[in-house]
Amino acid sequence: MHTEGPDERREERLEVTDRTRHRRLREKGSTLRSDLDDVLRAGFVCHLAVVVDGTPLAVPTVYGVDFDTRVLYLHGSVASRSLVQSPGAQVCVTVTHVDGLVLARSVFEHGVNYRCAMVLGTPRRVTDREELLHGLRVLTEQCAPGQWEYARSPSRKELAATSLLALPLDEASVKTSAGPPDDGEGPDAASGVWAGVLPYRPVFGAPEPDPLLPAGTPVPAHIAALAGRR
Amino acid sequence: MHTEGPDERREERLEVTDRTRHRRLREKGSTLRSDLDDVLRAGFVCHLAVVVDGTPLAVPTVYGVDFDTRVLYLHGSVASRSLVQSPGAQVCVTVTHVDGLVLARSVFEHGVNYRCAMVLGTPRRVTDREELLHGLRVLTEQCAPGQWEYARSPSRKELAATSLLALPLDEASVKTSAGPPDDGEGPDAASGVWAGVLPYRPVFGAPEPDPLLPAGTPVPAHIAALAGRR
Repeated sequence: MHTEGPDERREERLEVTDRTRHRRLREKGSTLRSDLDDVLRAGFVCHLAVVVDGTPLAVPTVYGVDFDTRVLYLHGSVASRSLVQSPGAQVCVTVTHVDGLVLARSVFEHGVNYRCAMVLGTPRRVTDREELLHGLRVLTEQCAPGQWEYARSPSRKELAATSLLALPLDEASVKTSAGPPDDGEGPDAASGVWAGVLPYRPVFGAPEPDPLLPAGTPVPAHIAALAGRR
Repeated sequence: MHTEGPDERREERLEVTDRTRHRRLREKGSTLRSDLDDVLRAGFVCHLAVVVDGTPLAVPTVYGVDFDTRVLYLHGSVASRSLVQSPGAQVCVTVTHVDGLVLARSVFEHGVNYRCAMVLGTPRRVTDREELLHGLRVLTEQCAPGQWEYARSPSRKELAATSLLALPLDEASVKTSAGPPDDGEGPDAASGVWAGVLPYRPVFGAPEPDPLLPAGTPVPAHIAALAGRR
């Protein structure tokens, strides 16, 4: 029997399509599935590109990924409206992490360090009660691990009012840009201009209790643990 | 002579169109021009929604706004490709700031605090040399104020290789979601579950010099000043 080891799994590659082939120079495309997963795992807000009434919109929404079934779940009221209009509608889900400003000797070589994943496909509305619960759990746990067990679960009525989309990770691309500026060995290197990277990262601050919370309600450990982390 | 005062300017309203009218409940739409400007001023990376070969894509890119001429400039190689294919193509530029996780007593009431601006329209490619320089300046200064004067200006050849798009701020919408969760007075309030907001904000870290930089090259004051700020 062949058992897939972690190293082999780490080396699994994404299928490259005409839409996901990398075209640009400075950015570095990756076809490693683990790179895609790392970018998706590091966030909880994506931008969904969807055509609504003929206009492409980029709509921010919350997402979570089930890395076992390779399905991305997202809150999708705007997309739902569009998907009702045109079944089979294509969308793009983009997750971007801005990691820093690249400050070069010349304006032209300036840039941004980032990691970006784009998932393409046709999402389906989640209507099955069990999958709705599962998708919400995935989404909630990606935002704040431990919160699904801690907070009250959705009622039947609340589930019915939840609009969730499922998008398989079948067609995706990853691009990252990292490191110092490129003009350290060019003619501008002698200019005396400072060059380097200004790192940029989001962090969670200290929890702010709801003013209506009874005094003395303890902050649960899984929430306290998030403060200071990204 | 009537002189427009700062208060009046602050009250200027955005024109509401069918595409920018707010439909959702929890989020708070604003039609104040100053709210739009505040959201646009606070960022430097947007997501551009554009249809490329029939597929809507959400592409992250750098932007800057000239608040006098009310024009948003963005780096737009992907969009350029698309715009060449279909002149007059509609796009959407979305700027999103995630401000916090809203942790409620119930999973259903969970959410994200955010500020989001969406600008709709048909961008034009900037081809005029003077406007290319101006747009790059606006973009550079929005990322790192002071950097345009400090770094070497683009050469004629570099300008020719720069793809810049201009999008007027004529049709735009702003949505913000802020404050504690909504279930502080409902039946879940007695559950003893902690509820509140986990603030989330990006910050600039300490400048990391290019390893190729000559030892002793000082970090300019305008860059040092950004560390610790968002």
